Amino acid sequence: MIGGGSWATAIIKMLSDNIKEKEIYWWMRSTEAIAHIQKYHHNPNYLSSVEIRLPENHISDNIKEIIRQAEYVVLNVPAAFLKESLAEVTAEDLKGKKIVSAIKGIVPDENQIIGEFMHDKYQIPLEDILVISGPCHAEEVALEKLSYITIASMNVDTAQNFAKLLNTRSIKTNVSDDIFGTEYAAVLKNIYAVASGICHGLGYGDNFQAVLISNAIREINSFVNAVHPITRDIMESAYLGDLLVTAYSQFSRNRTFGNMIGKGYTVKSAQLEMNMVAEGYYAARCMHFINKKYKVEMPISRAVYAILYEKHSPQIEMRLLTEQLN
Amino acid sequence: MIGGGSWATAIIKMLSDNIKEKEIYWWMRSTEAIAHIQKYHHNPNYLSSVEIRLPENHISDNIKEIIRQAEYVVLNVPAAFLKESLAEVTAEDLKGKKIVSAIKGIVPDENQIIGEFMHDKYQIPLEDILVISGPCHAEEVALEKLSYITIASMNVDTAQNFAKLLNTRSIKTNVSDDIFGTEYAAVLKNIYAVASGICHGLGYGDNFQAVLISNAIREINSFVNAVHPITRDIMESAYLGDLLVTAYSQFSRNRTFGNMIGKGYTVKSAQLEMNMVAEGYYAARCMHFINKKYKVEMPISRAVYAILYEKHSPQIEMRLLTEQLN
Repeated sequence: MIGGGSWATAIIKMLSDNIKEKEIYWWMRSTEAIAHIQKYHHNPNYLSSVEIRLPENHISDNIKEIIRQAEYVVLNVPAAFLKESLAEVTAEDLKGKKIVSAIKGIVPDENQIIGEFMHDKYQIPLEDILVISGPCHAEEVALEKLSYITIASMNVDTAQNFAKLLNTRSIKTNVSDDIFGTEYAAVLKNIYAVASGICHGLGYGDNFQAVLISNAIREINSFVNAVHPITRDIMESAYLGDLLVTAYSQFSRNRTFGNMIGKGYTVKSAQLEMNMVAEGYYAARCMHFINKKYKVEMPISRAVYAILYEKHSPQIEMRLLTEQLN
Repeated sequence: MIGGGSWATAIIKMLSDNIKEKEIYWWMRSTEAIAHIQKYHHNPNYLSSVEIRLPENHISDNIKEIIRQAEYVVLNVPAAFLKESLAEVTAEDLKGKKIVSAIKGIVPDENQIIGEFMHDKYQIPLEDILVISGPCHAEEVALEKLSYITIASMNVDTAQNFAKLLNTRSIKTNVSDDIFGTEYAAVLKNIYAVASGICHGLGYGDNFQAVLISNAIREINSFVNAVHPITRDIMESAYLGDLLVTAYSQFSRNRTFGNMIGKGYTVKSAQLEMNMVAEGYYAARCMHFINKKYKVEMPISRAVYAILYEKHSPQIEMRLLTEQLN
């Protein structure tokens, strides 16, 4: 496991229910957090109710050492920090390993989803790339609330094998062969969660929220069909469900961030107030650039981009958006 | 307008913004409510903040007299009371008039949607039938929160003409030719809102709710495609949006009812506690019978039926349901 956040902690919990703790290796940046987990068996910063019983030397800030042990490397840092986290890691280090993206973000500058980036930069074969997708707030995993996750891989056997490691009493797994669609949908939904938050902050109600989300899923559908035109049902949990949980849930940091923007905070001050990274903020920018290539009609994404990056007034931008929805 | 509830009051408000109040006629059963509105210009029971300025003699409990004046007859009583409300009304009384269903329910015994029932019993031509569909909680209409509604008619001109009467500063209208699909979807969503409430009452979280709803929209899609196989996009506001607003909103009486069932109330005691009719309760039963003909796989609807009508334990039924979702 690469990353020490709430989603990483949640997946560590799932894995611990299925395989011996000594088979799990965990890298995180913070030496304080490592020392705390080694001593107290709880992550001090995220999902701190979850008990963690990994052997002491299996939690480390030495990423090469952790990766060396791994068959599956689960990438679980914010997309904006992926390159920095992997700075010392070489293609040789990752050779023959399966790469699992739990990130739900776009690598900045490259403007690539994680699988594409790992494929290009580290020559990971596409069939060795997996994606873990929701709908799944980490907080509810800690609470052992029933959740369904989807594991995608072009090789369905690979997806199934990894899914077995995550299945628990409270986690059900689906498998899919759509690594592009699930990853793009997971990225896009964060933008729509920001949009939901902005509209809520501006005083739009539940009626409008329902219209916004039913337009958002059509935007996702249009985009993933343009990027990767295979047969998929966008109403499955990994797409629509993932959008719903993020756009409607109280746990969503993207929605909270958007809400502050709608209430009049500047981007800077909203980010300072929040202690977590709102992936949707970065995703809006990356998708703006990626969509220059595909030119898919995406009025909601465009509105969020204009508000966050072009200093457009949320009031005016959302008013204009309402004319384009149906 | 036939009916004196919150949705009827909301539509009266929309109409009053577009046509002269003297062109609107309103029937309701309660003579006390009529007298109150005539004197104080507010509905005492529903959306009481909305000002109503109809001429005194345009609000009446004489249904034949009200219908006699009408070009469009908007049916807006609970489906369970439709036959009783129309008891004195004859096919002759309705001849040449357009019938607008704002009911979102099934006529019991006949187990027909409103349009079918009016067509069969009163010989209303199908092209003179309209359906008003959400996503639109009446409460937000009163608050002038931006809302989108869909007007369906097999004759799109008819739909457009009626839509013009409802367009206001805070109401946007879409038109559709799918009178069967919009009406069935509007009925079914109430069952899924009950299911959402039951799951919430049982302690299921947001992650599961997202899975439930992304399965529910697929159930709706399968059913309406079986009943009326035309090209439609189930992700449009009238279908998916309507489901979302009902299943996620605090205003939804169906969700509230389900929540009480999930928390262990009996059906009887939950109904006594609530002052409004939960349409989903009746819809579950009617759809159970209607689906005997179509035999569409609808595990969520079936679970709700089993809980409400066959006294199955909500815990066990929902546990079994979780095995059938993905």
